Amino acid sequence: MSNRLDKVHEVLLMGPGPSCVYPEVYRALARPTIGHLDPLFIDIMDEVKSGLRTLMQTANTATLPMSGTGSAGMEAGFANLLEAGDAVLVLVNGVFGKRMADVAGRLQARVDTLEFDWGTPVAVEAVAEKLADKRYTLVAVVHAETSTGVCNPVAGIGAQVNPTGALYLVDAVTSLGGMPVCMDDWGVDLLYSGSQKCLSCPPGLAPLSASERALAKLKARQTRVPNWYLDLSLLLSYWDGARRAYHHTAPINMIYALHQALQCLLDEGLEQVFERHRRVHRLLVAELGKLGLEMLVAAEYRLPMLNAVKVPLGVDEAGVRARLLARHRIEIGAGLGPLAGKIWRIGLMGHTAREHNVHRLVEALHAEL
Amino acid sequence: MSNRLDKVHEVLLMGPGPSCVYPEVYRALARPTIGHLDPLFIDIMDEVKSGLRTLMQTANTATLPMSGTGSAGMEAGFANLLEAGDAVLVLVNGVFGKRMADVAGRLQARVDTLEFDWGTPVAVEAVAEKLADKRYTLVAVVHAETSTGVCNPVAGIGAQVNPTGALYLVDAVTSLGGMPVCMDDWGVDLLYSGSQKCLSCPPGLAPLSASERALAKLKARQTRVPNWYLDLSLLLSYWDGARRAYHHTAPINMIYALHQALQCLLDEGLEQVFERHRRVHRLLVAELGKLGLEMLVAAEYRLPMLNAVKVPLGVDEAGVRARLLARHRIEIGAGLGPLAGKIWRIGLMGHTAREHNVHRLVEALHAEL
Repeated sequence: MSNRLDKVHEVLLMGPGPSCVYPEVYRALARPTIGHLDPLFIDIMDEVKSGLRTLMQTANTATLPMSGTGSAGMEAGFANLLEAGDAVLVLVNGVFGKRMADVAGRLQARVDTLEFDWGTPVAVEAVAEKLADKRYTLVAVVHAETSTGVCNPVAGIGAQVNPTGALYLVDAVTSLGGMPVCMDDWGVDLLYSGSQKCLSCPPGLAPLSASERALAKLKARQTRVPNWYLDLSLLLSYWDGARRAYHHTAPINMIYALHQALQCLLDEGLEQVFERHRRVHRLLVAELGKLGLEMLVAAEYRLPMLNAVKVPLGVDEAGVRARLLARHRIEIGAGLGPLAGKIWRIGLMGHTAREHNVHRLVEALHAEL
Repeated sequence: MSNRLDKVHEVLLMGPGPSCVYPEVYRALARPTIGHLDPLFIDIMDEVKSGLRTLMQTANTATLPMSGTGSAGMEAGFANLLEAGDAVLVLVNGVFGKRMADVAGRLQARVDTLEFDWGTPVAVEAVAEKLADKRYTLVAVVHAETSTGVCNPVAGIGAQVNPTGALYLVDAVTSLGGMPVCMDDWGVDLLYSGSQKCLSCPPGLAPLSASERALAKLKARQTRVPNWYLDLSLLLSYWDGARRAYHHTAPINMIYALHQALQCLLDEGLEQVFERHRRVHRLLVAELGKLGLEMLVAAEYRLPMLNAVKVPLGVDEAGVRARLLARHRIEIGAGLGPLAGKIWRIGLMGHTAREHNVHRLVEALHAEL
């Protein structure tokens, strides 16, 4: 071992996550660890549940963080709701839609995908046609496709899915806390997120919420959930104040961090936070335009918190990223899959979404391009 | 939300985990978050892998922390190594052995259990008989049974399992970092632990190591691992310095904490750490004896870091625990399953295992009994 941790210094995190962490959250993270069955910790858990319900705009009692990163939220969503042989429709227009299909396939669901060009949104009418053809147990989509910067029309898709009786699963890893997420109004049955995007915590938790319909499907399963660690019935027995049955040891200090991050968000006010994301996003697009840089996604489908920027012809995209990090202590992200080498991904998530950060990045890009 | 985090103050954690966290680890936890693909973070990951290999006494390159608590380590072990229909033998003498059987059953393995009285160790000769009767794909046992305080004879069991060709899976959640764990010498193919016991980190990571034989079984699977999040092949592509393929976003700050905890352990020296656990354990047993308190487990099978103490007749065991916490800021654990109400579980794990903590507990018990 070495004293390598001493070399860890602040980086301006403007990639696809993790984002900059609130100073209050670092302090929360380092509060003394207490027991996972300590009455005080149980009060903290209850407040985290309540804060998440406000953020997700849901009345679901089954709202709690999974003890893993955002991908554990995806795993939990599919593992709890699917049984072998269930018909699933996954809407795919980026890496995370593809990952959903992979996760569902491993659980032996019969997976259909409906694919759309990367950088364009899911087309609601195409979904409606597909749903007219075949009955599905579950339909899944990513709200904010982190690999492309596209916002998918979650409400419109929900309006098509709900009447068919299929469960509706939405990945809100990148959207939650940076733009409105209205789980109940949009007819979403299972929604999950991650702590390290617009919540501005370190990575390590996956807030998740399940509707009564989702819980009914869970209860009606013919087979046990093939994942003890993420079995929602067991987790709910621990997170339910009246029962509080020991399941696994909760990641205490990460829960402190999430509690504090929720407090920061709710203190600022959700509308104010969302407006800040939109405002800083508009500033970024305008400033990048002055440098001659173009966005991948058409204006009406752009996410505020994840900006896919075309790499100009002849520019060494990896070299620019490396120099931004080494010389300017700014991290931005690379493209993935078919967009590798073609785009940069600039995050404006949570505490990162500040005007001064945009100016700092634009100056650095100006110097390095 | 409330300012409830302000009410979180130091508790002397003498239960079954989490244990007291090193002050250096709290500081590491609050270091600035950097990106999961940042070259500096990649160096930190490499050092964590190397520190874990030293601690587990293994040469396995596939040694890394799972992004979840100790239970995620258990899930990962079984999910990667088992396929539906595989014959598994689980040795059960407490809660965590029972949990293993549950986890394996959900993965549709054909699970046999061999059960032993809680508070007594697994009998090697009984295992040998069972193995003579039937071929198994995998045999699983808990090294330090946290629910009873019993140390199972992992080396002796391994000597029976290895010649049969079965894979050997060992839960070292409570033992790792507090007593010798010699993965390679004991013929263990898959071993996992948790960060919140003798490593004295907060809960949230599950160090895991897999032998070449385990990886060969993984490679030879007929079906995909039914758990994308914990798929070891994908995780190894991220944790392998040469490939570093993005899988999920690692829990950066928890990895800092683990790095620091490993440094604390290795700086003190493994032999010194183990001797400290034994010495403080002997002191606890002697001091409890003066109070007239008896141990559940026979002396030769006792764990140093988890002490099961019989509750004297007529004593309100939950009341004593509640008063220890409320009046003395000391947490001890309750019994589980058939031992509920009958024992207290007193942890001496990692940074908790100090003479002054024993004296503080004994004084408090003296006042409350």
